[in-house]
This record gives sequence, C-alpha cells and structure tokens, in this order.
Amino acid sequence: MLTKDNKILIVGLGLIGGSYAQGLRAQGFWVGAVTRSQETIDYALGHGLIDEGTTVPSANFIGRYDLVVFALYPHTLIQWITDYQQFIKDGALLTDVTGVKGAVVYKVQEMLRPGLEFVGAHPMAGREVYGVRNADCSIFRGANYIVTPTAANSGQAVRTVEQLGETLGFARISRLSPERHDEMIGFLSQLTHCIAMALMTCKNVEHLSAYTGDSFRDLTRIAKINDEMWSELFLLNRDELLGQIDLFTARMSEIREAIAGGDSEALRSIMKLSTERRSHFDK
Amino acid sequence: MLTKDNKILIVGLGLIGGSYAQGLRAQGFWVGAVTRSQETIDYALGHGLIDEGTTVPSANFIGRYDLVVFALYPHTLIQWITDYQQFIKDGALLTDVTGVKGAVVYKVQEMLRPGLEFVGAHPMAGREVYGVRNADCSIFRGANYIVTPTAANSGQAVRTVEQLGETLGFARISRLSPERHDEMIGFLSQLTHCIAMALMTCKNVEHLSAYTGDSFRDLTRIAKINDEMWSELFLLNRDELLGQIDLFTARMSEIREAIAGGDSEALRSIMKLSTERRSHFDK
Repeated sequence: MLTKDNKILIVGLGLIGGSYAQGLRAQGFWVGAVTRSQETIDYALGHGLIDEGTTVPSANFIGRYDLVVFALYPHTLIQWITDYQQFIKDGALLTDVTGVKGAVVYKVQEMLRPGLEFVGAHPMAGREVYGVRNADCSIFRGANYIVTPTAANSGQAVRTVEQLGETLGFARISRLSPERHDEMIGFLSQLTHCIAMALMTCKNVEHLSAYTGDSFRDLTRIAKINDEMWSELFLLNRDELLGQIDLFTARMSEIREAIAGGDSEALRSIMKLSTERRSHFDK
Repeated sequence: MLTKDNKILIVGLGLIGGSYAQGLRAQGFWVGAVTRSQETIDYALGHGLIDEGTTVPSANFIGRYDLVVFALYPHTLIQWITDYQQFIKDGALLTDVTGVKGAVVYKVQEMLRPGLEFVGAHPMAGREVYGVRNADCSIFRGANYIVTPTAANSGQAVRTVEQLGETLGFARISRLSPERHDEMIGFLSQLTHCIAMALMTCKNVEHLSAYTGDSFRDLTRIAKINDEMWSELFLLNRDELLGQIDLFTARMSEIREAIAGGDSEALRSIMKLSTERRSHFDK
C-alpha cells in the first residue's frame, strides 16, 4: 500500500522525473531527488518540486526512502543500481519509467540484492522538450500507465506501483508482460517514429515546403526526436522492432506492386481494409 | 478577366463541385450545374448552391456558359469532354479540380476543338466526407490552389483561372508545371496515404487498441480513404508515385540496417537530420 508515510526518491530529475516529483509532492508525499547537477536540484527546490536533493548518492540520504523511482536512460539505470543499490534500505520498493521493458526489467531483478523488489512501469506520456524546467505533471492526465510484473514480483508490490500511477492521475492503469509491452511499443511507438524519420529525411523537400499540408505535417510531427534516448530504446528492443518494421515494409511492397501492376482491385481492397480498420480508432 | 458577367458551369456536383458552386454563388456569380442525379440538383437548388441545373447535357444549356469547371473523376472528365465538348460555346474557358495533372492536362488539351481552352487547376482542399450535402466553401480558406499551365495556354486564360482561386478565398495561389505538380503530390500526398494505409493494415492491432496514443493516430488519420478516387489518382501518377515510394523505402531500409547492426551512430545521425528538417515545418 502506498501511504503518505512512504518517502519517495526520484533518481534522475529530467522531464519525467521532475513531473513525477511535482505530482507526488502536490499529493502530499515527501519527495527527495538524486540527480547529476546541482543546478537541477536548486531549480527543483526553488520551484517546490522536491523536499530535498543531492548530487552525491550516500547511504545516509538514499537509506531514508521507501520507494525509489528511476527516471534514467536504461544504461544509466543499470549502472546506478550496480554502484548504489547497497545504499537502499531493506524492504524498499523500486520502479522505473523506462520505455522498453524486456531488456531492463529482468536484468534489474537479477542484479538486486535480496530484500529489494523492482516492478517495472512505463508512463506513456512525454513532451518534445526536455529537462526539469519543463516538468509538468499535467502531462499524465489522460495518459496510459503500464505496469510490467514478472514472476519475481509480489502482488503487493505490483499493487503499490499501480497506486503510484493512480496518484499521478493517469487515466488508464494496466498490466502487461514485459514481452507484450515491448511488442506494443515496437509497433505503436517505435515503428511510427522510424516511419516519421524516414519520411522526413528521404527527400529534400525545401522546394515543396509551400505545399505541405496536414497529411505531411501529421506524419512527421514525431520526426523531432531525442536521438540519444531513442537510439538506445530502439537498440534495446531490436528484435521486436525489426519484426514490426518488416511487417510494415511487406505491406508497403504489396501496395507498390499493386501500383506498378496497375492492379486497381488490389489497391482498392487494401484501401477498404484501411478505411474500415481506421474507423474503429475515431475518437 | 473573371467578371460577374461570366456565367460559370460546374460539371459534377460532389463535395468539391458543390463547394465551388456555393462559394461562387455567394460572390454573386451565376452558377449552373450538370450532374448525374436529379436529387443532387434538387438539393443544390433548395440550398441556394446553384441557379439552375440539369442531368441532361445539351447545347441549349451548356452553351450559355463562359467558364466550365470540371469536378469529376479523371476518367469521367475525359469521357465527358469526348461526348459533350460540341455543346460548349466558342471562346469558353475550361478548368478542373483534378488531383493529378500530367495524365489529365495534356490529354484534355489535345482533345479539345479549336476555340476552347483548358487550364488545369488543383484546389488542395478536401474533407473525409463526400457529396453535395457536405459542400462547404469554407474548406478553401487557408488552403493552396495550384494552377498548372502548359505551352498551350494563353497568359490571359491562366490569369482568369487564378482569379477563380482568389474568388474562392484560397490563401495561396501558385503555378507549377504539371510534372512538378505531380512530383509534389506524389510525395506529399500520395506517398503519405500509402504509408498510412500500410501502417493501418500491416498488423491486427485490436489487442493494442487500448494503448494507441497520438503517434499512431496522427500517422493513420488519412488511412480512411475513398478507394474509388484514390486508386484512380495513384494509377494516373504511377511512375512518379513509385519513385517516391522507392525513396522512402530505401531510407526505411537504412534505418532497419542501422538497428539490425546495432549502429547507434548511424541511427543518431538520421534522427538528428530528421529533427533538424522537421523544425523548419513547425507552424
């Protein structure tokens, strides 16, 4: 059970970590932070996002916390746990915000010493800006929050991590296995970003820019992409993402063949299926 | 010069023909219509979109008009001109609203008898609904209107067709060769529709529908597509569209190879280019 007696530590005060801190403190929790830069901590203290913060992980500081939320890039998360899990108190619950799960959750669970439990979670929210100065816990309203339990988790810990999502105001809390989560993310998020990047970069469109309308803008909105974060997430979900790219590319080839062969019936049949399927997604 | 003395005939009263009629009549022009269904004419008369209309092309009716706007599917446009150009009066100016130009403009110009002139135009506006009952001339506000003159056109006729676009309230009137127009449409509109169709149909996503967020919705908004019209437009622009699909597919393959090879630097370099190019398209 998540109660107001639980002190919550955020590790990594970026956009998501900062937004977690803001939302949790607004709900009355004691929130601490460990992050790399003192400037970030000063900003977070000055704007009421945290109760205390440090750039130096220590047993004295970290050992006070019951729930630790990692809001780090995946490789940094693994490194942090390697270096500092000794400072976390026995019985503490750990969770994260990472956008891929298979490559993270099992690894972290294997690394942890007995007495610590890690439950993966993915808040499906974000903005196209970064850093604690853009922290805004309203981005969680209306968004999905997915918990990815494994056989190593206790029901109680999973429930507590779900409560964290409820406290932050997510519209929909659900559970998926790490594998199912990664399939979903591979298709709905990573493949769509690959498509947007490919469309945005495959042709120099400056001479066409006067004519770009809603279609092109819609398909390339997500072509602005944090290359450091997304390249890491893509590679950590490599096999799943490659499978989704291949599904998409196979269908593109079918469309191409229908056009090349002048096969109006084949084209129309794909268009009809497309129209029918899309109609289920109208808001 | 387009003046209020010019009577304007709309051939084909669908969404675009009906919206032209509405906009032109609101500006004080005499507007007639030839279309297939009496019900459509009754509706258009009853709602003040036209001054008169008929389902039966005749010299008496058609011969009264100075400017004829074809708002038909391409193959219907060619057939109509074959059958009825004899009824159009000498000196009349003809234009259209077709979404491809190379395969239409030259053909029509070759077919016309001396004394008639055709200037192609493409109003880049539309809605995902059809028919005269959805006519709404406000769809032209803020939109592009492209005139595609050829060596067969007089400067005066081109100017008159541009004035038609101005009268309808388009935000930007420009001239492109039919070939350049088709390259632009092949990339910005037809390729994007192919991508949306492929993404929407390559995987059964019902079990993922709870998680579809803005990215997937953005990329598939245009996956609802009028199969009769778009299949014809795709095939009439076949070579250009195939070239654009190949450009896109080649870039997707590069992204796939970078992911398969774990080549973080190659991925990040495409992401950086994508981010930089997309930033020029922010509104």
